[in-house]
Amino acid sequence: MSPAGRRPGDSGTREAILTAAREGFSAAGYRGTSLRAIAREAGVDPALITHYFGSKDALFEAALALPLDPGALVPLLLAEGLDGLGDRIVRAFLAVWDGTPGQGPMLAMLRSAVTHEDSAERLRELLTRVLLRPLAEGAGKGDAELRAALLASQVAGLAVARYVLKIEPLASATADQLAPLLGPTLQRYLTGALA
Amino acid sequence: MSPAGRRPGDSGTREAILTAAREGFSAAGYRGTSLRAIAREAGVDPALITHYFGSKDALFEAALALPLDPGALVPLLLAEGLDGLGDRIVRAFLAVWDGTPGQGPMLAMLRSAVTHEDSAERLRELLTRVLLRPLAEGAGKGDAELRAALLASQVAGLAVARYVLKIEPLASATADQLAPLLGPTLQRYLTGALA
Repeated sequence: MSPAGRRPGDSGTREAILTAAREGFSAAGYRGTSLRAIAREAGVDPALITHYFGSKDALFEAALALPLDPGALVPLLLAEGLDGLGDRIVRAFLAVWDGTPGQGPMLAMLRSAVTHEDSAERLRELLTRVLLRPLAEGAGKGDAELRAALLASQVAGLAVARYVLKIEPLASATADQLAPLLGPTLQRYLTGALA
Repeated sequence: MSPAGRRPGDSGTREAILTAAREGFSAAGYRGTSLRAIAREAGVDPALITHYFGSKDALFEAALALPLDPGALVPLLLAEGLDGLGDRIVRAFLAVWDGTPGQGPMLAMLRSAVTHEDSAERLRELLTRVLLRPLAEGAGKGDAELRAALLASQVAGLAVARYVLKIEPLASATADQLAPLLGPTLQRYLTGALA
């Protein structure tokens, strides 16, 4: 369905701009994507983007905004103690990714990061500084930076294998199936003895 | 340095075409990249691409050719038995990726796969059917498809964390440091009891 002819006031205008922005930033990165191109793709006047979002930077933030605050997730995950923490991380990861149609902002962020250095830096910061490093620090077993990097490698790999490469049976497995498979890996990276 | 002005017969011509092809296929995928655009980027006449490679399909194969036959790697890895297999996979992975300047074809393949469905299918086939499934079958513990998918998730994630997101200390760790950290994960996915 072509979004052309969409008018200001259409209830889907904002969402059409966000979808076009995700596609643009995924394919061409932040610098390579113009507001004009996003407006054309969304079938709206460029002035509407400014109206809804204010600036290109604010549009980028909105398009790639996660459905929850990753920083807020850390205390929730740690609240129940270290037992089963890896299991809970797998379930939280799947709840967020599977709960978002098309994995919208997360997949857009991953795609943009893999092809553009500026987006890679952004995702690295979010993954490590905001999410995984505080988690590793909260687990209190030392080596937080290394543990966060190891966690990042398995979590990013799960995203790539399940949502990008769609490798079966990983791609269509349920959280109940995946948690006992991947949970022990995350548990060891967070709390185990590292060589 | 601009490659413009390169002439037939220059020793670097073939390499310049391969580099431009990797960049093109990474950024725009197989279908979105024309031989004309690759020739322009490489600073050569399009006829030279046909001269050196024959066809677009053959150029794609050459640009993304791995520095070794992944199928040949499987019996080598299995030859020493199941003990330490995970450790040896990590070392083989790093030897291949670190031994290739800029991780050329592997990183191009990963980038192309993350942004284009046709390339994702190609990488999925290579990773699972050619490399990881035979490895899991060779390990002989059953559930080869599931074990291959789990291996894929950790191996793809290591590539993303180390070479794309460049998360420290993973990005600059040596094989001797990484093998004991990641080896046990791969070992469990290959030979461990799965829930």
